[in-house]
Amino acid sequence: DERPGVAVVGGGFMATVHSRAARAARARLVGLASSTPERAADAAARLGFDRAYASLDELLADDAVDVVHVTTPNALHAAQAEAALAAGKHVVCEKPLATAPDDAARLAALVAPGGAAAGRTATVPFVYRFHPVVREARARVRSGEAGTVLTWHGSYLQDWLLTSADDDWRVDPATGGRSRAFADIGSHLVDLLEFVTGDRVRRVAATKRTFFSERARHAAVSTEDAVAVTLETEGGAVGTLLVSQVAPGRKNRLHLEIAGTGESLAFDQEQPETLWVGRRAGTLLVPRDADQLAPDAARLVTTPAGHPQGYQDAFDGFVADTYAAVRGADPEGLPRFADGLRAARVTEAVMDAAETGTWIDVSGEKR
Amino acid sequence: DERPGVAVVGGGFMATVHSRAARAARARLVGLASSTPERAADAAARLGFDRAYASLDELLADDAVDVVHVTTPNALHAAQAEAALAAGKHVVCEKPLATAPDDAARLAALVAPGGAAAGRTATVPFVYRFHPVVREARARVRSGEAGTVLTWHGSYLQDWLLTSADDDWRVDPATGGRSRAFADIGSHLVDLLEFVTGDRVRRVAATKRTFFSERARHAAVSTEDAVAVTLETEGGAVGTLLVSQVAPGRKNRLHLEIAGTGESLAFDQEQPETLWVGRRAGTLLVPRDADQLAPDAARLVTTPAGHPQGYQDAFDGFVADTYAAVRGADPEGLPRFADGLRAARVTEAVMDAAETGTWIDVSGEKR
Amino acid sequence: DERPGVAVVGGGFMATVHSRAARAARARLVGLASSTPERAADAAARLGFDRAYASLDELLADDAVDVVHVTTPNALHAAQAEAALAAGKHVVCEKPLATAPDDAARLAALVAPGGAAAGRTATVPFVYRFHPVVREARARVRSGEAGTVLTWHGSYLQDWLLTSADDDWRVDPATGGRSRAFADIGSHLVDLLEFVTGDRVRRVAATKRTFFSERARHAAVSTEDAVAVTLETEGGAVGTLLVSQVAPGRKNRLHLEIAGTGESLAFDQEQPETLWVGRRAGTLLVPRDADQLAPDAARLVTTPAGHPQGYQDAFDGFVADTYAAVRGADPEGLPRFADGLRAARVTEAVMDAAETGTWIDVSGEKR
Amino acid sequence: DERPGVAVVGGGFMATVHSRAARAARARLVGLASSTPERAADAAARLGFDRAYASLDELLADDAVDVVHVTTPNALHAAQAEAALAAGKHVVCEKPLATAPDDAARLAALVAPGGAAAGRTATVPFVYRFHPVVREARARVRSGEAGTVLTWHGSYLQDWLLTSADDDWRVDPATGGRSRAFADIGSHLVDLLEFVTGDRVRRVAATKRTFFSERARHAAVSTEDAVAVTLETEGGAVGTLLVSQVAPGRKNRLHLEIAGTGESLAFDQEQPETLWVGRRAGTLLVPRDADQLAPDAARLVTTPAGHPQGYQDAFDGFVADTYAAVRGADPEGLPRFADGLRAARVTEAVMDAAETGTWIDVSGEKR
Repeated sequence: DERPGVAVVGGGFMATVHSRAARAARARLVGLASSTPERAADAAARLGFDRAYASLDELLADDAVDVVHVTTPNALHAAQAEAALAAGKHVVCEKPLATAPDDAARLAALVAPGGAAAGRTATVPFVYRFHPVVREARARVRSGEAGTVLTWHGSYLQDWLLTSADDDWRVDPATGGRSRAFADIGSHLVDLLEFVTGDRVRRVAATKRTFFSERARHAAVSTEDAVAVTLETEGGAVGTLLVSQVAPGRKNRLHLEIAGTGESLAFDQEQPETLWVGRRAGTLLVPRDADQLAPDAARLVTTPAGHPQGYQDAFDGFVADTYAAVRGADPEGLPRFADGLRAARVTEAVMDAAETGTWIDVSGEKR
Repeated sequence: DERPGVAVVGGGFMATVHSRAARAARARLVGLASSTPERAADAAARLGFDRAYASLDELLADDAVDVVHVTTPNALHAAQAEAALAAGKHVVCEKPLATAPDDAARLAALVAPGGAAAGRTATVPFVYRFHPVVREARARVRSGEAGTVLTWHGSYLQDWLLTSADDDWRVDPATGGRSRAFADIGSHLVDLLEFVTGDRVRRVAATKRTFFSERARHAAVSTEDAVAVTLETEGGAVGTLLVSQVAPGRKNRLHLEIAGTGESLAFDQEQPETLWVGRRAGTLLVPRDADQLAPDAARLVTTPAGHPQGYQDAFDGFVADTYAAVRGADPEGLPRFADGLRAARVTEAVMDAAETGTWIDVSGEKR
Repeated sequence: DERPGVAVVGGGFMATVHSRAARAARARLVGLASSTPERAADAAARLGFDRAYASLDELLADDAVDVVHVTTPNALHAAQAEAALAAGKHVVCEKPLATAPDDAARLAALVAPGGAAAGRTATVPFVYRFHPVVREARARVRSGEAGTVLTWHGSYLQDWLLTSADDDWRVDPATGGRSRAFADIGSHLVDLLEFVTGDRVRRVAATKRTFFSERARHAAVSTEDAVAVTLETEGGAVGTLLVSQVAPGRKNRLHLEIAGTGESLAFDQEQPETLWVGRRAGTLLVPRDADQLAPDAARLVTTPAGHPQGYQDAFDGFVADTYAAVRGADPEGLPRFADGLRAARVTEAVMDAAETGTWIDVSGEKR
Repeated sequence: DERPGVAVVGGGFMATVHSRAARAARARLVGLASSTPERAADAAARLGFDRAYASLDELLADDAVDVVHVTTPNALHAAQAEAALAAGKHVVCEKPLATAPDDAARLAALVAPGGAAAGRTATVPFVYRFHPVVREARARVRSGEAGTVLTWHGSYLQDWLLTSADDDWRVDPATGGRSRAFADIGSHLVDLLEFVTGDRVRRVAATKRTFFSERARHAAVSTEDAVAVTLETEGGAVGTLLVSQVAPGRKNRLHLEIAGTGESLAFDQEQPETLWVGRRAGTLLVPRDADQLAPDAARLVTTPAGHPQGYQDAFDGFVADTYAAVRGADPEGLPRFADGLRAARVTEAVMDAAETGTWIDVSGEKR
């Protein structure tokens, strides 16, 4: 049977998204573990898994499980992913891969060549990479059509934590980690910008704010509501990032625009059917049309142009590519633990820059 | 005669815009001076002035002239504006008011209470303030409807200097000043953000780039093509600014978005008919409709909603308010030399921040 | 087992869409039949069905099959749906339900109360009904918030048949039916307008064109490339429809705007995340946010606002509701054979109006 | 003196727009007549005319007046324009040129070759022709780039008469004419579609509604609030028009989209800075940039791209071209009395089609 056996750890919304994608990829939905056996039983039934596990250990001991999807609160990711690797499983681990860069580094090393889990597929759902027009943007940079990239311009804005009445486990560093807004959503933005440009952030200056020091269930909130960043890249570009979870009217608005000497390329995650291509002589709106996209973009097209692909479709693409890797393929653009480590390092640098008031180096190799 | 007598210094595109606005305001277009008597004669005929002057001195000696519009290259602004004030004229001086903050400070002091030219009207065309929906945004902050402002998010992108073949006197610090992109367009962005929020930039971190060190007529270009800024405000907000003259497909795209605890407010200068108002419960597109706007916005409406007002209309509003001030009124939101000085100081701080790699203080009083 | 056993007839793109939706709904994908056993085997393997049938008869004889999805060329729909009903199956039949209104009427009668297949679930995928914001629009009409509907304004534009080199079985009346563009896509538009407004078309005037009388594989094309319609509704509204498969740059652009005395409501199928709500005092963009939508809209939300739902998500919603009906529920807004009959009648009227140059009555009861 | 002497008849909003345009064109604003000497005095002072006339006769007797702008209620247009021509003046007459086609025909004949006023400039402000991107659309049709035009798709929607409390002289046929919505705004739409395509409407089917039979000051309203039209053109295209003054949220939304075999071209009067050009391979947004437009479009550009031109700018362009014609030039695309006659005929046909329920012929020569 080519169909991988899949188990999920966690029973929240991301567990739903992962299990939909696993089903769409025709995996076997073997089982689910959660914080308690009761929750596991409930979630397993709700999401259509064959069984519930009483514990993660029980899950990891199940030979029917090939791939483990970790969808628990951030602070648990590293240990659970490590345990899954130790049990010989392939792993999909929600971002942030770890709340401390050292943990992320250890995980990345495990699956790197020579590591104890070398050869194992270990991915992190930077799913916005799986919108076909994002691949098209990347292809235009790689082909030279966009020219040398000069500026980056990104924002990721949400409003679900707009008032002090809004709360979540992410607010607490003990469960969410040192950084909240940047780790949770800013990391997507940086991953996407580095992915599209093939360039890397070299150093950052930043400032951050915790506007609401008290929230419904947390008395002394320290994690940031918003971060503003100026950056330089290895390739010589400059840019800005604004990340906020307190921006009224913005639900999940990841927007990026890069300007190259040939073209500007803009992507809006909330309207992922079109790539905005700015040229001096006019603007081109490139539709998500397999006939017109670069091969690596076209391969992710699942419906004809004009029949919108959405968030779940992107997630399905990520999971399908992960399972292809499990089967031995090497799909282009699959975000792996090394990418999760990169995100952790950039997050750390942004936090440090904001807290020290200095530029912080975060150089890394170009991809 | 209530109609002011107007003269223009300079004969380029901005002279055209100023003279159209003067005509729309029913001023008397008395005369024009330029870099040579020939150019003055040509421009005066082309733009419909009654006469050309052989020199600025001749212009300033003409008692028929009440208001002098300075539209020459940046490095000339301060001296010409000062001469006009010394000659007893009211002055409209193109931005930047001066290429050095000290010069701007001297000019602002001249017209401040107790200054040698106190009582004289002295304005700087931060004309984007004159879009009715910008006033509406400001009114929503002032009324408290938008809540406490948490983040700023601005960009001003153009592409007219995209290649090394593109050139202009602004490229040369000797005529354009130390800063190019930020002084020329970034200053508009900061003015608008401070105007709308009533808040002020407190400090900035920045980086800048001169991507094209050679241009058609300039061998060693030092002025910046692009600047990226992170900022904090007196009021506690954080934000980013990206300013570039090398962004393909962007013609004159000033865009700003501020997020308050109640509303986000976004304005796009290229589509000035609508204010985007983000609320958690949905987005409101507020049309430029006098029936629905705050009084200070409604007073700048000159055509019914759906009959677009444009750039020249905003400029006309600025000039009409300037002339109203000349006649003794005190129109709300008129950008005066103090605002030109503010822009010079912010520009200097941004350049310093970029060159030193440190945060630079630029605090000022809230308006 | 609550999971319905599902079989598909046909192996083209729509078979893919139906089978994805069946899988997402956790049905058992029992088997597939196509035009030949070879094609069936290929499609069954490709789409993940347990088996292929050599013929429709074999499929219908399989007791494991509860629901048959008919996705074959239009001219086959009626007979295959009828055979499936005769075999005691529930049926999902692609639109048009039949290429002749009489056939559609016979099918609708079969499943109507007192019909031979009464009680059987029999649906037609007017899937655009399953975008949450479409339900929100409908709720606003039903609640009276939008007021009395005065005008309809709809278009459905595609470009996949733009040149004579483009061809398809739909071009030939023998396989596609008398009407091409209107039956295929115009019917969606009318269904949606009647669904949202609860009103019905009363009569139509129309004109149509076959711009390309020859296509790659068809020598004398008679089916229309484009149709323009003026209409009156039972409720007193007037409106226009433009339907074309030769509109460059439009991929699948179903757009509708209705104006009521209280609100205008506009929906663009290619951007289904937002409902445009026009009011005299401004425009509201209502996001697909479960917290803010009417209950029947909110129940179709599967991802948080800002995580776009797309075409497949809408299709999934339709199939999930169909299977809920199979299990005995009565989901709101499920498009049934009666709706397929309605579409056939409107299509016939539009064709007749265009061919006779007169207004044609197509009155029906309000829903 | 090359500057024409201009007088305006009427003192309402359109008088303001005309006089601004005359001033921008550097005409002499000689005088103004209105319904009473008092109103004339008030308007002349307000709008900056040198004098007020006690009557139209007095105005027409003034030799300083070269051009008369007629901006009175519709029913007065024909007689006043005719009187102005009889007095030897050039005339700009607001649309509709006449409320009866016969009157429009008589006026058009007067200025036609061989007419009593042959050689006189006589124009009608179909001002949307003066948006540069409209000229660009026209140029793309004329050059063949857009291919053969297949479909028209137009709407003109407003909301200023949305409730029965809203009223205006246009509501009354005695002052406004038989048709209200179509004559007032639908005529713009048809003029623009015929202007852009170079094609002409051949016949129309239509329906119309008067939703509010009573308004604040009118007891039995007969003129239409909304009209829906299906049309065929001489060139073989088909299309629809929806015209309404009761569409909430639409202020002055003239929108047209034509689909040719090569390109679709769409224009939105409320966003006149961009031409939407649809191609199968993607969409091009053509900016109002003189460097990139066809010559007849570029000549109407008055500010650089990204500095929006608006409604008054278009009006200024129309008046400037009218005055150029007065001085003997023959500007391309100037809407003359023949175009006003054409609009009157199409309006009549639409009304007849709606009232008779039949297709009405309105064929005319291609331009």
